[in-house]
Amino acid sequence: MIAVDWGTSNFRAYRVAAGGGVVDVRTAPLGILAVAPGRFASVLDEHVADWLADGAGPVVMCGMVGSRQGWVEVPYVPSPAGLAEIAAGAQRLRVNAATSGLILPGVCCRDAAGVLDVMRGEEIQILGALDAGGDGVYCLPGTHTKFAMVAGQQIVSFRTFMTGELFDVLCRHSILAKTMDRLDGTDDAAFADGVRRARAGGALLHDLFGVRTRALFGELPSAAAASYLSGLLIGHELRDAAPAGHVTVLASERLAALYARALALAGVEYTLPDPVRALTRGCAAILALLREGGH
Amino acid sequence: MIAVDWGTSNFRAYRVAAGGGVVDVRTAPLGILAVAPGRFASVLDEHVADWLADGAGPVVMCGMVGSRQGWVEVPYVPSPAGLAEIAAGAQRLRVNAATSGLILPGVCCRDAAGVLDVMRGEEIQILGALDAGGDGVYCLPGTHTKFAMVAGQQIVSFRTFMTGELFDVLCRHSILAKTMDRLDGTDDAAFADGVRRARAGGALLHDLFGVRTRALFGELPSAAAASYLSGLLIGHELRDAAPAGHVTVLASERLAALYARALALAGVEYTLPDPVRALTRGCAAILALLREGGH
Repeated sequence: MIAVDWGTSNFRAYRVAAGGGVVDVRTAPLGILAVAPGRFASVLDEHVADWLADGAGPVVMCGMVGSRQGWVEVPYVPSPAGLAEIAAGAQRLRVNAATSGLILPGVCCRDAAGVLDVMRGEEIQILGALDAGGDGVYCLPGTHTKFAMVAGQQIVSFRTFMTGELFDVLCRHSILAKTMDRLDGTDDAAFADGVRRARAGGALLHDLFGVRTRALFGELPSAAAASYLSGLLIGHELRDAAPAGHVTVLASERLAALYARALALAGVEYTLPDPVRALTRGCAAILALLREGGH
Repeated sequence: MIAVDWGTSNFRAYRVAAGGGVVDVRTAPLGILAVAPGRFASVLDEHVADWLADGAGPVVMCGMVGSRQGWVEVPYVPSPAGLAEIAAGAQRLRVNAATSGLILPGVCCRDAAGVLDVMRGEEIQILGALDAGGDGVYCLPGTHTKFAMVAGQQIVSFRTFMTGELFDVLCRHSILAKTMDRLDGTDDAAFADGVRRARAGGALLHDLFGVRTRALFGELPSAAAASYLSGLLIGHELRDAAPAGHVTVLASERLAALYARALALAGVEYTLPDPVRALTRGCAAILALLREGGH
């Protein structure tokens, strides 16, 4: 099987052996917004032609590739949604003459006030990590961080937080940009200060201005300001998401380290399963369900 | 007297008659960041030369003109601060051979956790509006909205909220920009929806993503998305600032209308004194104090 996580900004393909192990990886900064309509099959072929020639398919794809701007629009499946609901909503297509493909649907959920939320891609990681995380809270940090509640092996509800994107626009386009001279790396003490400040219970809109005043008065070095802001935002997110007891975090190495630090400061237990393993396991489980169902 | 509010982005001068009335106004998009060091006296002269020739001075200036990047750096006065403390911290200078000038200090305040906050210019409006607002909560909406607590005719404490700037960067630089086709004007129903959503008690970082999902599902027209976002941000700000009983709002006409609407939805009483009258009264009161003191 080939599992593909095709998002807004990146293309990531994993060649999965029969036993479930990832034997090869191809990534490219070719998110769906960089692919012209009608060109998805060609772009896929350009990156994994040799795998396809080897008969490594089928290709199971998730993420924004199933959105309106993607290869084929695959409607969101409403929560609660588990592997069976995702499998039932999957869309078949031909990758080439010899290889079949599947595009998996995302999940949508409506909160008590009727406001919708959506995910595409994260649901597969969550369902693929159930052996590690079981029922409970899942956190998938990123540009748009997801917090999902899983019960009975289904995604029951979830909320998206615009944390990563807010960090990015504030660092690049707000008055806070003037207080920062580096955005890479992490100043651990400043990050922890930000988390603690957020946990003190103040208002996010006010705490953001504090980045500027602390810098203005020489209490926050410009090399540490971005880390402090990151801690503030993640701290507020965790305070509002209020995961109790235990959280399963599915994140890249860099974000996993930040969330581990912030959760530890919040006194919340966490586990950090491998997000790639979760993705490929999720794709494989859905493929197996469809085969069992005789499809 | 000539009262000047010289901020980061704008220069505003008011010619004040002996009786206190504003008889003429000059404004220009010449904030302090647009003025080269050493050029402040010339820029002032270019805009009010005729007033100065009439002997309309002295010139009483407040705002960022007293900051490190301004004409002369005038250190912040710590809160609690009233007219007397501001007057004592004022810096004298010559505007020209015939006219003297004053640059008034801003106010700083440290919260319980030791984090600093600052204002420059708003303090003069607050102290100039005491006859209208008395002791209690003052709100000065803008790029960086201030909420101040006044007791015993002194600014006792205050908090800055980055509400206006966050609205601006999200509208222009985030994924939410794609959901909006107009930023001018106000869709009153969408604004009220945003305020109500904020008051429902959710997380700001999550509610922001809701702008995108509501647009994605056709539940928020692109002409209304900016107003909904504005309502969300102001609603969260008011929820966190939690003014009780009564608020005195000092704002331009456009922002005054938005805050009046949001405060009404929150069930908070408000008054809307004229912010220009507040500014000129504040400047005049400080000038009078300095003259009484024989300075």
